[in-house]
Amino acid sequence: MNGNKTSCNSGRRNSFTQVKETTKTQISFAKDEIRVAEAMIDIIFPAVTFPSNRIYTTMGEQKIREMVAYHHELLLKTKVGGLFPANKDAFKAVVDKTADFFVEALGGETIFRELHGEPRLRHRHFKIPIDENDREIWLGMYKKTIKEIDFPQQHIEEFWNWIEPLSIRMINRRTNMDNITRHHWVDVKKDFLRG
Amino acid sequence: MNGNKTSCNSGRRNSFTQVKETTKTQISFAKDEIRVAEAMIDIIFPAVTFPSNRIYTTMGEQKIREMVAYHHELLLKTKVGGLFPANKDAFKAVVDKTADFFVEALGGETIFRELHGEPRLRHRHFKIPIDENDREIWLGMYKKTIKEIDFPQQHIEEFWNWIEPLSIRMINRRTNMDNITRHHWVDVKKDFLRG
Repeated sequence: MNGNKTSCNSGRRNSFTQVKETTKTQISFAKDEIRVAEAMIDIIFPAVTFPSNRIYTTMGEQKIREMVAYHHELLLKTKVGGLFPANKDAFKAVVDKTADFFVEALGGETIFRELHGEPRLRHRHFKIPIDENDREIWLGMYKKTIKEIDFPQQHIEEFWNWIEPLSIRMINRRTNMDNITRHHWVDVKKDFLRG
Repeated sequence: MNGNKTSCNSGRRNSFTQVKETTKTQISFAKDEIRVAEAMIDIIFPAVTFPSNRIYTTMGEQKIREMVAYHHELLLKTKVGGLFPANKDAFKAVVDKTADFFVEALGGETIFRELHGEPRLRHRHFKIPIDENDREIWLGMYKKTIKEIDFPQQHIEEFWNWIEPLSIRMINRRTNMDNITRHHWVDVKKDFLRG
């Protein structure tokens, strides 16, 4: 990348470029020289800020479970719905497990770990192909959920700042060269304003 | 990462860790603090060293085409074979197009660009899910091809140093947290020794 020269000698990491930048460079093929296509990285998973227990303290376990169930009902109406088990009991088991995760992550008891072990969110989703657009849908349906249920207004920012980067970690199928779209709070908070 | 402190202030890139390293860190969930899971990267695509025209000069177009066809016949006997069109003419079109790419990349005429446009190898494979193991098979079948055809012995190293990192760029489906396995020439050259 141009303009990226520093006096730092920390090595190869400085030569990484993200996919989109690199593809602008055309590789011209062989004559009698050897040419090198620069190293690059694919996804950058941003840091994930886990929430405090304020949301749990305000909502309580039952309302968190209802929120997760609501979100999944919305997902079923999208193309992401096809990634879930068709069997009703199997689907309910997925929703319950996800609710266990949300309850624990938002500050409740360590119910997920006790029932299912380490969260390992990315690992647990490897068996299902999840692409960039699936993540957009998942996140978009959480936006809709937050707006449609009785979510505590003062905690939306903290919740969003957790699920937005978290959702990126589930992507395991790339279908384009674009950087992963961020939906930063500063850009989306207007969508949550109540008329 | 421990032991990675430098006096360099080039910013966020120094805080990347690869997936496998990060997952060793257990995130403990909420009480009244906010915790942060570190940023991380998924695949590092290593630099790809494109070969000189020495292989083309030695083998000629026809033998390169035969090599690509041989490789594809081997692939058909593996699980990667299922990623190719079942229709015979469609399969032949894929092999011909790949051969165009190899002929041009190894130093022949700009036949690929003239017939198909920019190579954009990673882009062209997005429609097909290719995981880490598919890449292992693809590369393994090239090893077998090189050993079984009349490949010029003095140019194997240059060829391998191209296809080994190149093959990583086709991966677009992750199924595990491991770093992508490298098969460096220094480790594989013994496999090419002729008894």
